[in-house]
Amino acid sequence: MAITMGDTNGVGPEILAKLLARPELMELCEPVVFGSADVLRKASAVVSVELCLREVPDVPPRGQCADAIPVIDWGYRAPAWNPGVLEAGASRCAVEWLKKAIACAQSGQVDGIVTCPVNKEGIQAAGYHYVGHTQILAELTASPDCRMCLFAGDIRVVHITSHCSLLEAVRQVTKDRIVHSIRVAHAALGRLELQRRRIAVAGLNPHAGEAGMLGREEITEILPAIELCRKEGIDCVGPYPPDTVFKRMVEGEFDLVIAMYHDQGHIPVKLIAMDQGVNVTLGIPIVRTSVDHGTAYDIAGTGEARADSLWAAIRLAVELVSSEEHPHD
Amino acid sequence: MAITMGDTNGVGPEILAKLLARPELMELCEPVVFGSADVLRKASAVVSVELCLREVPDVPPRGQCADAIPVIDWGYRAPAWNPGVLEAGASRCAVEWLKKAIACAQSGQVDGIVTCPVNKEGIQAAGYHYVGHTQILAELTASPDCRMCLFAGDIRVVHITSHCSLLEAVRQVTKDRIVHSIRVAHAALGRLELQRRRIAVAGLNPHAGEAGMLGREEITEILPAIELCRKEGIDCVGPYPPDTVFKRMVEGEFDLVIAMYHDQGHIPVKLIAMDQGVNVTLGIPIVRTSVDHGTAYDIAGTGEARADSLWAAIRLAVELVSSEEHPHD
Repeated sequence: MAITMGDTNGVGPEILAKLLARPELMELCEPVVFGSADVLRKASAVVSVELCLREVPDVPPRGQCADAIPVIDWGYRAPAWNPGVLEAGASRCAVEWLKKAIACAQSGQVDGIVTCPVNKEGIQAAGYHYVGHTQILAELTASPDCRMCLFAGDIRVVHITSHCSLLEAVRQVTKDRIVHSIRVAHAALGRLELQRRRIAVAGLNPHAGEAGMLGREEITEILPAIELCRKEGIDCVGPYPPDTVFKRMVEGEFDLVIAMYHDQGHIPVKLIAMDQGVNVTLGIPIVRTSVDHGTAYDIAGTGEARADSLWAAIRLAVELVSSEEHPHD
Repeated sequence: MAITMGDTNGVGPEILAKLLARPELMELCEPVVFGSADVLRKASAVVSVELCLREVPDVPPRGQCADAIPVIDWGYRAPAWNPGVLEAGASRCAVEWLKKAIACAQSGQVDGIVTCPVNKEGIQAAGYHYVGHTQILAELTASPDCRMCLFAGDIRVVHITSHCSLLEAVRQVTKDRIVHSIRVAHAALGRLELQRRRIAVAGLNPHAGEAGMLGREEITEILPAIELCRKEGIDCVGPYPPDTVFKRMVEGEFDLVIAMYHDQGHIPVKLIAMDQGVNVTLGIPIVRTSVDHGTAYDIAGTGEARADSLWAAIRLAVELVSSEEHPHD
């Protein structure tokens, strides 16, 4: 399992060091770090763990590196560790490590990718046109229509748009985009050990438009999308008022909610499951999960950051990979 | 304290009956019901309580109606009780009872108004141009710039817009509107027994725009509004990422959050405090609180609806009235 370090100046290295020291990680998978061995050693000292690392030029064959954790320090060399500071050099490394990990996943050298946080401003400062991880994955896997999801235990949200302005997100509430999101969500649920795959679709407007009085996207775009997917045999319902549909999922009525924009899904998930949330990219040909927090420069280098989200991300990635090998969908 | 029954076919009558039977309500205030005595009697039977009601043409003088609960059945007569059914006649009564209650509050006959839910579709079907309670209050008190807020214990949210489409809400994110919201929120906090009045302002876009990459309203409208209010001595900060600012309030960092649109505030509050939420109208010259749920036609008439939100609304209204009499702001 590839784990990318992300921005070396963020909390990535320290949460990675915390996890790599846990025996249960090694029982779950064979990790391969895409990042700087030097930074990882320094971060290990901060969180008081000892790691046996081995710098390797490429992914070692499975089972061939049991005595040490392989670290691929590929592409640009990381600048000196400078926790909490936005540096273009650190962001450049983060992007290149991810690109390398994607190539390894595409060639089957790794089963999937788990990513530590990057900084969007840093990526742009490094001269890339990407906004974040998802765009890079979309481009390199030729999957322009992939979807960002948040999973946290039984809480699952697929967003029809992710990192764009709210105005742009409203413009992108279209039947086609919603239909694709429902299909991708339905397929993803099929990979998990669930009895059913009950999908609820949130409205865009307050009270889901209240019969058109508070906006018409529910009538013109969302409902037609739901009706089409129901005809395909997908168990999906809605559109429901956004301010109660997440509560209903928490109470067990649905297995997944389709959210119309970033914060519609992020506000409830972060509130319910702050440290347990996992970001998943669906609609791409490889397994990829991520922590659901940012670089947290304000606490980077202190060792304070919790590794729960990264741990949850790795467990979910392994779950998705396992079911891929034995698909029951 | 005026309590309006709202839509007789919604859950208003039954939650009102439940509360009116509680001795602690009478200890807290002298209620005056603006609604149908006939419907209230039938709803009392459903929830198995006995109420001593007295139909009166106008608000009795304080302390003069201790042996019964005065009910003002003013204006249109309510149609026959038909729980769960949208009827223009029931909505017409709801509007007229509210108008009467507003007039009584303006003339000082009642100290404030607590409202049970109305149905927006029903109000339009009855031929009114209003979308809901708040618009009626705004018009009759000549307060076009009032604000809808949600309070639930230490969770407080003031919305800069309320019942409009999300697209329209995005358009209304302006410096002036935000400044007014912050001032109104600051004044409202002054009426509560708080040590400080720490206000956080949410961003509009994902990650609060991430330095302009995901939208520019934070830079052009929100930050200038915060800076202006800070110069006036108001303790306000932001704009913060919408998906973590509510969590920070829950953890005690702020006393109130300014939300940029309806669901940004409603999603977290309904999730945290489903049955404790109270809707408050700020920026009008009278005290007005409301339940934060709708007519719930699906369970109306069954007696299932909980009276918690109505009870919280009455307690908050009394708190706001008391401090109005002895303002420390």
